Amino acid sequence: MSTRRDALRALLPAAGVDALLVTDLVNVRYLTGFTGSNAALLVHVDGDAGSRLCTDGRYRVQAAAEVPDLEVVIDRACAVALAGLAPELGIGKLGFESDHVTVDAHAALAEGEEEEEEKAALVRAPGLVQQLRMIKDPAELATLRTACAIADAALAELVDHGGLAPGRTEVEVALDLENRMRVLGAAGPSFATIVAAGPHSAIPHHSPTSTPLRRGDFVKIDFGALVDGYHSDMTRTLVLGAAADWQREVYALVAEAQAAGRAALTPGADVADVDAAARRVVVDAGRGEQFLHPLGHGVGLQIHEAPLLGATGSGRLAAGMAITVEPGVYLEGRGGVRIEDTLVVTDAAPEVLTRFPKELAEV
Amino acid sequence: MSTRRDALRALLPAAGVDALLVTDLVNVRYLTGFTGSNAALLVHVDGDAGSRLCTDGRYRVQAAAEVPDLEVVIDRACAVALAGLAPELGIGKLGFESDHVTVDAHAALAEGEEEEEEKAALVRAPGLVQQLRMIKDPAELATLRTACAIADAALAELVDHGGLAPGRTEVEVALDLENRMRVLGAAGPSFATIVAAGPHSAIPHHSPTSTPLRRGDFVKIDFGALVDGYHSDMTRTLVLGAAADWQREVYALVAEAQAAGRAALTPGADVADVDAAARRVVVDAGRGEQFLHPLGHGVGLQIHEAPLLGATGSGRLAAGMAITVEPGVYLEGRGGVRIEDTLVVTDAAPEVLTRFPKELAEV
Repeated sequence: MSTRRDALRALLPAAGVDALLVTDLVNVRYLTGFTGSNAALLVHVDGDAGSRLCTDGRYRVQAAAEVPDLEVVIDRACAVALAGLAPELGIGKLGFESDHVTVDAHAALAEGEEEEEEKAALVRAPGLVQQLRMIKDPAELATLRTACAIADAALAELVDHGGLAPGRTEVEVALDLENRMRVLGAAGPSFATIVAAGPHSAIPHHSPTSTPLRRGDFVKIDFGALVDGYHSDMTRTLVLGAAADWQREVYALVAEAQAAGRAALTPGADVADVDAAARRVVVDAGRGEQFLHPLGHGVGLQIHEAPLLGATGSGRLAAGMAITVEPGVYLEGRGGVRIEDTLVVTDAAPEVLTRFPKELAEV
Repeated sequence: MSTRRDALRALLPAAGVDALLVTDLVNVRYLTGFTGSNAALLVHVDGDAGSRLCTDGRYRVQAAAEVPDLEVVIDRACAVALAGLAPELGIGKLGFESDHVTVDAHAALAEGEEEEEEKAALVRAPGLVQQLRMIKDPAELATLRTACAIADAALAELVDHGGLAPGRTEVEVALDLENRMRVLGAAGPSFATIVAAGPHSAIPHHSPTSTPLRRGDFVKIDFGALVDGYHSDMTRTLVLGAAADWQREVYALVAEAQAAGRAALTPGADVADVDAAARRVVVDAGRGEQFLHPLGHGVGLQIHEAPLLGATGSGRLAAGMAITVEPGVYLEGRGGVRIEDTLVVTDAAPEVLTRFPKELAEV
């Protein structure tokens, strides 16, 4: 974790600040390993001696255990408490995460700023930790591989044990899958599992209902395992029984788009171009209007993190990024297909972490 | 839901705005029933005709189904999209949730505000929906009762089936309890279940580990069931085998403080006074320093919501508020006790929703 704090320090001079006040809990966890629900972190450009972790009394023991290498301040109002330490720590310009701090929280930080001359000047410094988090280190990649392997195994078990039999409900299938992931070692699902059968599969983010699976249905399953704070993300769409021609056609189209997206995952590629590479396949087939969302997103300590693979995304891919590629085509009232992998960008072909087969499965 | 929007409208004139831009997803859900992961809501003071829900293409079908009574705008950048409609909807002063909107998001909303004279003026309007959410309506109370009853039943089953046998690990107990809640009808746990055995029970918010339960341990279990978006919250601390004298002493003290807190839950009571009523019991016993957190908090669509029962809380209780009362005493390195109920403030005695027995249990 101290390596990560050092990497953040290297970004502070260009941001024009003497320290960064980290208030996004995910970023605090990334930089310290602290997992409590209330915390803030002050990262001083000069090193850990001038840096502080703040949490409240509920987490005093936990903070000492999880973060033995930083001085811990106990307070409930962590951001204000740490900002108040700026003068004694020699911080003149204090960066804050303006993409996380609310307008009201900023007002609380700034209160009295003009009256007290010695108080630090607040400087907007958004996205610095997110920028670091995009490139996964070897320990993070190992955890993501484990999370994806658990999801693969759980889905394979589900199918092998008849878990997709007609008559079972979407909710039952979702619970079955989540329980299998837990038995396999996940802390839980990485988000609320999507199981969407028949016409529901045309709803990109459908919440499972008591609707029973029926022969001939598409069943779209979008799920993941949470392991040590890291999220896996995979979607597979299967057919219960023999696929109809229209199902084969849509499935083949999405599979072709997904392959095009994976092929475009190279270091240096513009994220909008990667989206376009997959989207072109769908548009050329006359179904562009039925591909309702961006192609993919970064994944790690959050299920959705930078970069966004979409027309409105910006930036370029780099080796070490963990990213989903998940085109979908949705025919309202009939059914839809999404095929999603979690992959890691490398200097060679991307590493596919989610390995459950992608051929059209008739189960 | 339209009744809730009407109640919000009644607050808008005093807030000095023609409409409120609701960006907190929990508040959007409260006011519309929409459960997707990207949305914003514009509530016009004049009525639903000038109000709009925004979400992105993934949720188009879901929004139409969940919110048939509002016009839906499809856009990924919902807040900016809805703010842009202000001129055509006759909105001069647009309130925004300054306790939710980030500094950067506010800058995006305000962009060009000065150049374009017809654009709405942005006005800080924090906490309006949270204020409404404090008082639960009958449907919300019914859901909370169900959530609490499921938690009660799951813990009773766990104990009855030997789920707290020495040798089982904290993680196993947590999973067992969560699975029982799901079988009983919960969508999931209402937060990451805390199971803390032996010295771990002295850590207020301990994450379960592979540590096995041992005879003589305190086992502190803090957990809840999630039902239709509503959270239950209960803590019980049990002893494995016969309790030692120090365990009986600490338990009796916390039980007395909890009873004092419950007795203070009357409409009109200042929230800080309720905290003080329970805390006094612990302080008088010379253990004030070992009661590390506020007495309780509101609970509903979020596990922690207004009001805060603590020294730093402000405001008064009112009938219909759902609140936890959860004093704790923690002896570092030895063990700790917390006893927590979810209750509803009424004009008579508070209604206790979590009914699992609170007498010291030796299991």
